[in-house]
Amino acid sequence: MPTPPADKHDQVRRNNLSRILRHLHANGPASRSDLVGLTGLNRSTVGAIVTDLVDAGLVEERAGTTSTVGRPSLVVAPVATSAVVLSFELRVEKLIGSLIGLGGTVLKTREHPHMRAGYGVGIAVEQIVQMSIDLLDQVPEGSAWVGTGVSIPGSVENASGRVRLAPNLGWEDVPLGEPLMRAMSTQFGDPPMVTIRNDSDLGAISEHLRGAAAGARNMIYISGEIGVGGGVVVDNRLLDGVGGYAGEVGHMVIDPNGPECRCGSNGCWETLIGLDSVIRATGNDPETCQLSDILDRADPAQPVAQQGFETIGRSIGIGISNLVNIFNPEAVVLGGHLSELLPFVEQPVSAMLARALPASRSGVRIVPASIEIGSSLMGAAESGFEGLLADPVAVMNSSSVLIAS
Amino acid sequence: MPTPPADKHDQVRRNNLSRILRHLHANGPASRSDLVGLTGLNRSTVGAIVTDLVDAGLVEERAGTTSTVGRPSLVVAPVATSAVVLSFELRVEKLIGSLIGLGGTVLKTREHPHMRAGYGVGIAVEQIVQMSIDLLDQVPEGSAWVGTGVSIPGSVENASGRVRLAPNLGWEDVPLGEPLMRAMSTQFGDPPMVTIRNDSDLGAISEHLRGAAAGARNMIYISGEIGVGGGVVVDNRLLDGVGGYAGEVGHMVIDPNGPECRCGSNGCWETLIGLDSVIRATGNDPETCQLSDILDRADPAQPVAQQGFETIGRSIGIGISNLVNIFNPEAVVLGGHLSELLPFVEQPVSAMLARALPASRSGVRIVPASIEIGSSLMGAAESGFEGLLADPVAVMNSSSVLIAS
Repeated sequence: MPTPPADKHDQVRRNNLSRILRHLHANGPASRSDLVGLTGLNRSTVGAIVTDLVDAGLVEERAGTTSTVGRPSLVVAPVATSAVVLSFELRVEKLIGSLIGLGGTVLKTREHPHMRAGYGVGIAVEQIVQMSIDLLDQVPEGSAWVGTGVSIPGSVENASGRVRLAPNLGWEDVPLGEPLMRAMSTQFGDPPMVTIRNDSDLGAISEHLRGAAAGARNMIYISGEIGVGGGVVVDNRLLDGVGGYAGEVGHMVIDPNGPECRCGSNGCWETLIGLDSVIRATGNDPETCQLSDILDRADPAQPVAQQGFETIGRSIGIGISNLVNIFNPEAVVLGGHLSELLPFVEQPVSAMLARALPASRSGVRIVPASIEIGSSLMGAAESGFEGLLADPVAVMNSSSVLIAS
Repeated sequence: MPTPPADKHDQVRRNNLSRILRHLHANGPASRSDLVGLTGLNRSTVGAIVTDLVDAGLVEERAGTTSTVGRPSLVVAPVATSAVVLSFELRVEKLIGSLIGLGGTVLKTREHPHMRAGYGVGIAVEQIVQMSIDLLDQVPEGSAWVGTGVSIPGSVENASGRVRLAPNLGWEDVPLGEPLMRAMSTQFGDPPMVTIRNDSDLGAISEHLRGAAAGARNMIYISGEIGVGGGVVVDNRLLDGVGGYAGEVGHMVIDPNGPECRCGSNGCWETLIGLDSVIRATGNDPETCQLSDILDRADPAQPVAQQGFETIGRSIGIGISNLVNIFNPEAVVLGGHLSELLPFVEQPVSAMLARALPASRSGVRIVPASIEIGSSLMGAAESGFEGLLADPVAVMNSSSVLIAS
């Protein structure tokens, strides 16, 4: 027997609540007229939806700035502390955590450095729970904790939160979602869902939603750490592939005679433009030297060839050019050290990009990531908000984790 | 003022007609029960839709084969000659044309060789019109000619049918859609729309719909001619990018020290695995030698290294491995000479594919194209059917080009 169709009216209302809250969350305050124009809904429907969202505490109406003479018009604005998420970015050398409010407001951040070697899932879970306690402390009364997102520098089985491979953490096929959810439940009773995702995919999500590629339907985010990864947005949706593992641009071979890669191949893009390789290409030792120090000493006005940046820039540019030919995107956003490097390598990057097919590269922007707390950390928050944004009022009504200080 | 919403009932009916006809067109005959199961619509709705399609002449109900004992069950089947399209594949050395009926039935094909040099748009338009007259001759009375599709080995501005760049035809920024439509109108009065698309995109569409990658949500088609192109299907939709130029995998640089490419770059995949390069890599001269002759003499049982296929296979495999890391697809379909080559290079291709990340390559199939008349030619037909499949009854009612023999 087919299941009976859901009540059409409820479904339409839920979709409208979702569309309007998503818009306010991503783009900030808007007038009712703006919302009418953006959604194509009529004024009375928008009014009813806004009333529902106000009743749920998610938005408020207040006087907005106005460019025209006369009384200031009302704007509908997301209430940052109405619904909050925890987001975590697990990196090779530290754990970063943040408390993020509706609308992407950063309420609090914490960092905890850790040893590179021997950092296992057990320690990670414990640190995340401890940091959660700290982050949730002193949140305004009545806030609803609606989700938790975790960013991992590796490939993740999205449904289960199992880490398939995070080479730079030394993790291979380890469960993280299940033990983390268990530990959170022990600590918090009935906490909201934990979502675990690949760092580059999360970077793409946040830079596409509210960062350097906002408004682009097609964009590529390239994360630059010791490893290099990618997240790709195609027609406003994250490219996931059959198993959710798409976007591994760091393992695109661009020189079969290049250095051996941790993945077992040769000349992967990552071996040429990953953080350690970049430091080595400038004639320094990654064990003893930070890229920031090298860049502080470098002079963007000097020819790049004299400073060892020529080769790096050409390698960055070849990979970008390949991706531009493949995806014909509006924007390529560089994260991590690639973002810091950009001012020093613009010339060779542009020279290589000019070799992409004219139609494919037409109008493309190569830009640094723009989200201050980190693209992946903000992306983890976005994954935490997903449930609320899909069904705002139901989640607020059922949320068992209302914070009482 | 927002436009008033279209009549909901008409819209729902149109969607249902479209879904059912699309299914029958792609997958062939199905029983009413199958259609109920596939669409989730109830039995009486499916019955009404089938009746509408029968009335329009697009489908018929007839006794189907049955695996159970008892009376044969009725199946709903597309009527091949009810609606037909013309499809053309413009290649470097010849024009191929076909008349294709609903359901993908090949009713007629024609070929016309041409000189490689000096083949301009004017001659192409004239040949297409002449071949159209021939193809439409003796089509059964009452058939509706519902579309025309043209495949081009180059990048095409889809909306206008302008060819941005077809290097192997020597065409750069030339209009084709407008003069072709004008010439067709002069010949046929009020012919249906002409759609002009990139050959690899069309290959992807047809191999995904009814070829070697049928059933795959994510697949890559790689066309092998003198140039190498790609068409990518992501979550059942063709990857197009911001301007419609995505998929230029042939210009992915995989060896920066490789041969110079026509595009101005070095070591593009195309320079290593394009038809001429492959012939040269086997120690032969592309001016005097056909690949089919080389392959006829070659022995698939012999080690590939002894026959010059090792290098070619490794280059094919490196590019495929890159694309598998980027797209995490279910299938990679090789067209043209790459399809012919596959049995001779399976070993090096597999060796290189094994270097893709385990999660990304999990379950991927590398397979030859399977559409006999050619993936791009069938894809051009599919683009011709698109209007009918979107709104079957309206197109049949309004079709001004009913063929009367």
